[in-house]
Amino acid sequence: MEPIKTVEELARSFRKLPGVGSKTAERLAYATLHLTKEEKERFILALTDARDKVTKCPRCGFFYEERCPLCSDPTRDRKTLLVVSDSKDILAIEKTKSFHGLYFTLDGLLSPLKNRTAEAIGVDRLVERVREEKVEEVILALGTDMEGETTRLYLSNVLAPLSVKVSRLAYGIPVGTHLEYLDNLTIAQSIQFRVGMDKGEDHHG
Amino acid sequence: MEPIKTVEELARSFRKLPGVGSKTAERLAYATLHLTKEEKERFILALTDARDKVTKCPRCGFFYEERCPLCSDPTRDRKTLLVVSDSKDILAIEKTKSFHGLYFTLDGLLSPLKNRTAEAIGVDRLVERVREEKVEEVILALGTDMEGETTRLYLSNVLAPLSVKVSRLAYGIPVGTHLEYLDNLTIAQSIQFRVGMDKGEDHHG
Repeated sequence: MEPIKTVEELARSFRKLPGVGSKTAERLAYATLHLTKEEKERFILALTDARDKVTKCPRCGFFYEERCPLCSDPTRDRKTLLVVSDSKDILAIEKTKSFHGLYFTLDGLLSPLKNRTAEAIGVDRLVERVREEKVEEVILALGTDMEGETTRLYLSNVLAPLSVKVSRLAYGIPVGTHLEYLDNLTIAQSIQFRVGMDKGEDHHG
Repeated sequence: MEPIKTVEELARSFRKLPGVGSKTAERLAYATLHLTKEEKERFILALTDARDKVTKCPRCGFFYEERCPLCSDPTRDRKTLLVVSDSKDILAIEKTKSFHGLYFTLDGLLSPLKNRTAEAIGVDRLVERVREEKVEEVILALGTDMEGETTRLYLSNVLAPLSVKVSRLAYGIPVGTHLEYLDNLTIAQSIQFRVGMDKGEDHHG
């Protein structure tokens, strides 16, 4: 059977979304044909709005329609800045409801191989913002891989001359996991950064 | 953080697709924002085409843009009709490349509880087609649950007065599965409908 062009095009679009492989993309494309006319209309409208109405916040890198729900929130702590390398991470952190400061999104992580220099990922903008807004603490919430480590090290050096506390997320055992399923490095880190039982909830100790 | 309306709308659309739960829908909605402008354009265009260009074939229930790739294919065996209850199943069967007849899609399965009568699911249309096109064999490829069994029984009774062979898909052990993972009924069926080793590939024997 010859393939249907529209289905192929739809599958190609679904395929662009993370976690969607070619089989899933094809399944979703056919499923889209099964939507009612009204459901298709709504889908098209939502996508058109995503293209036309949603803006990327120039300050934090998150998305908004009228004004940034994060940067414009007067109840948030403006002296604590959490740095991520991808604005998707902001959503993951917001869901925890355990951070109430502001955000800064780098344009990726340092990588000589991919030609991503400090300038390219926006380190200058970060330094400028820390200085101008008199930020008191910068929390580096970057990945734990090679690029993440390199970027974290680079940023802590760059930020050192400014009077700002620089911290990183705690490494350790994910809650609800058994040791036997974890890699050696994670276990080693959880031993190295062990927390005294008397410290209770004080993670900054 | 207040939710973004467009993201909620996008998630609602993704949620309509089978196999997409609310968490996946939200993840896909945010991922859609991350697409480039060109990728969004393409996605919108593909969806618009799905709405405007794709037609459901009135004969077999599958989709096409210009003419049905199945019904219009002169190389297919027009005397064998495979009946499904959902046009998605046509795709699954086509992928096996092991059926070369034509298709008929019922509007679901018989269900007194859901008020789906023989008339509602299109049994009359099926009988009419079998009679008019002098179909020689009808293969019932319906589900193996209660509704599927009921519909299969009903159809074989309705088709009995016509001079047409009625068959159903073989029940048995899925290829590549171990017995220990299978339910009792499947194993019992695979024993009841066992095939003599000398029969080789002759499934109709």
